[in-house]
Amino acid sequence: MTKNTKVNAAILIIGNEILSGRTQDTNTSTLANWLNSIGVKVNEVRVVPDIEKKIIDTLNVLREENNYVFTTGGIGPTHDDITAQSVAKAFDLKYEIHKEAFKILEAYYKPGEFNEGRQKMVWMPEKAELILNPTSGAPGFSVKNVFCLPGVPSILKSMLGGLKNRIVGGQPILSLTISLRTVESEIASSISKIQDKNKEIEIGSYPFFHAGKLGVSIVIRSEDQSKIDLCNSEILKFIEEKKIEIVDR
Amino acid sequence: MTKNTKVNAAILIIGNEILSGRTQDTNTSTLANWLNSIGVKVNEVRVVPDIEKKIIDTLNVLREENNYVFTTGGIGPTHDDITAQSVAKAFDLKYEIHKEAFKILEAYYKPGEFNEGRQKMVWMPEKAELILNPTSGAPGFSVKNVFCLPGVPSILKSMLGGLKNRIVGGQPILSLTISLRTVESEIASSISKIQDKNKEIEIGSYPFFHAGKLGVSIVIRSEDQSKIDLCNSEILKFIEEKKIEIVDR
Repeated sequence: MTKNTKVNAAILIIGNEILSGRTQDTNTSTLANWLNSIGVKVNEVRVVPDIEKKIIDTLNVLREENNYVFTTGGIGPTHDDITAQSVAKAFDLKYEIHKEAFKILEAYYKPGEFNEGRQKMVWMPEKAELILNPTSGAPGFSVKNVFCLPGVPSILKSMLGGLKNRIVGGQPILSLTISLRTVESEIASSISKIQDKNKEIEIGSYPFFHAGKLGVSIVIRSEDQSKIDLCNSEILKFIEEKKIEIVDR
Repeated sequence: MTKNTKVNAAILIIGNEILSGRTQDTNTSTLANWLNSIGVKVNEVRVVPDIEKKIIDTLNVLREENNYVFTTGGIGPTHDDITAQSVAKAFDLKYEIHKEAFKILEAYYKPGEFNEGRQKMVWMPEKAELILNPTSGAPGFSVKNVFCLPGVPSILKSMLGGLKNRIVGGQPILSLTISLRTVESEIASSISKIQDKNKEIEIGSYPFFHAGKLGVSIVIRSEDQSKIDLCNSEILKFIEEKKIEIVDR
C-alpha cells in the first residue's frame, strides 16, 4: 500500500457493558482520532455482545470490507473474555498458548502470582503478533488485518504508540472548522450549493449550545489542503454576505 | 407482543462526526439505559457515515433482525441530513411533506422564519408517525419498527418520554453489582464456575481504577430477581472463603 491510497478501518467494540448502558464507550473516539491522524478513515463502528457467534460473524464481514479492523474488549482473564478464541475461529486458526506472551507475563508477575486466570491471557490464535502493553503487562495481538486491544480506555491508549509502525495509512485527513453565531436553517442552502460543487470534500454542519447561545460549526474534511482552502473561501464569502458572526469554539 | 417475551433493539448512529472522532457519542448509553428500563435489550449498535446506501443497507438488516431500531442523527435542515430520505427508500415509501409536521413547525416559528432550510425538516417517509420534540420543535418520526431521533443529546433525551407508550417492552432487565477490592484473575475461575451452572444469567466482570486503587465490579443481569439472588449468594460464598473485601462503587 502506498501513500495517497485511501485506507479505511472498522472498529468493533466487544462488550455487554456498552450495550446495557452501564459503561460509556470512549474507545471509539480515541481510536477514531488516532486513526485519522495517521491517514486511516473509520468507515463503520459496531458494538456487539460477548457472544462468540456474533463476534465471529461480525469480524468476518468487517475484515473483508476494510483495510484494518480494531477490536476493543474481551481479552482479560475472566469467563466473559472471549475475543481471542473468537478471532481464532474467525480465521480458522488454532487457539493456543503464545510462548512470547507467556514469557512476558511470567516475568511481569511476582513468583506464584502468574495463576490460572492470568494464564488465560496468553491463549491466542496461532502466529498472532503481540501488541505490547506498557501499562498492565498483558499484551494485545494482531492476526493479519485485525488488531485486538483491551477495553480499559487508559490501557488501550497506552498501547497505540507501539502500533503506529504496523499500520500503513494514506494521506492524513485534514479538517477545518468554522463556528458561526447562527442556526443551521440560515446557512443550509448556501452550504448545500458549495457541497454540490465540491463533491469530493466532506462538509458537515453541527449545531451547538455553548455558554447559553446557539451556534453551528461547519467542518470541512479532505486529504487535500488546497480543496479545503477553496471551500473555506466560498463559505467565508456567503458568511460575509449574510453578515453572520464567526465565533471561537 | 406480551410481557415475558424477550424484546430486543438495535441502535443506528448516523453521522460522520462520530466516525471522525470529532464528537463523542453519548446517545448510545442514553438509549440503552432507557431501553433496559422498559424491558428492551440492545442487541447491537452500529455507527455509519452520512452515505445513503450505507444507511439503507444497514437499516434493512437491523430492522429484520430486531423488534425495534432506533436511529439518531441526520434529521436536521442541512445537506448532510439524509436520514428521512434514506428511511423512505429502505421501506420503498414516498418521501413527501408531512402535513402535521408542517403545521407544527409553521406554528413554532415566527412569521417569515419557517424558511426553506426548516421546511426540509417536514419531509418524511409517507405515513410516518411523528415523535414530538418539546425542546426545539422539529419532530422525529417512526415508520413501522424504526424510530428516528435527532443527534443532539439534550433534544434526544427530551423526546424519549413521549415514546414510552409506543414501545412494548418485555420484562425489565434487572441487575445487581458487587464491587470487590481484588483483581479479575483472583476471581476468574470461581465466577466461571457460577456462570457455567447458571447459563441463562449474564455475569460480567469489569475491572476499575478508583481513588488510586484497583477493583473489580461483578454485574449480574437477568429478568428474574430470584435467579439474581441465587447467583449473588453463590458469589458472596466464595468471596467470604477467599476473604475478599466488598467495596462501594
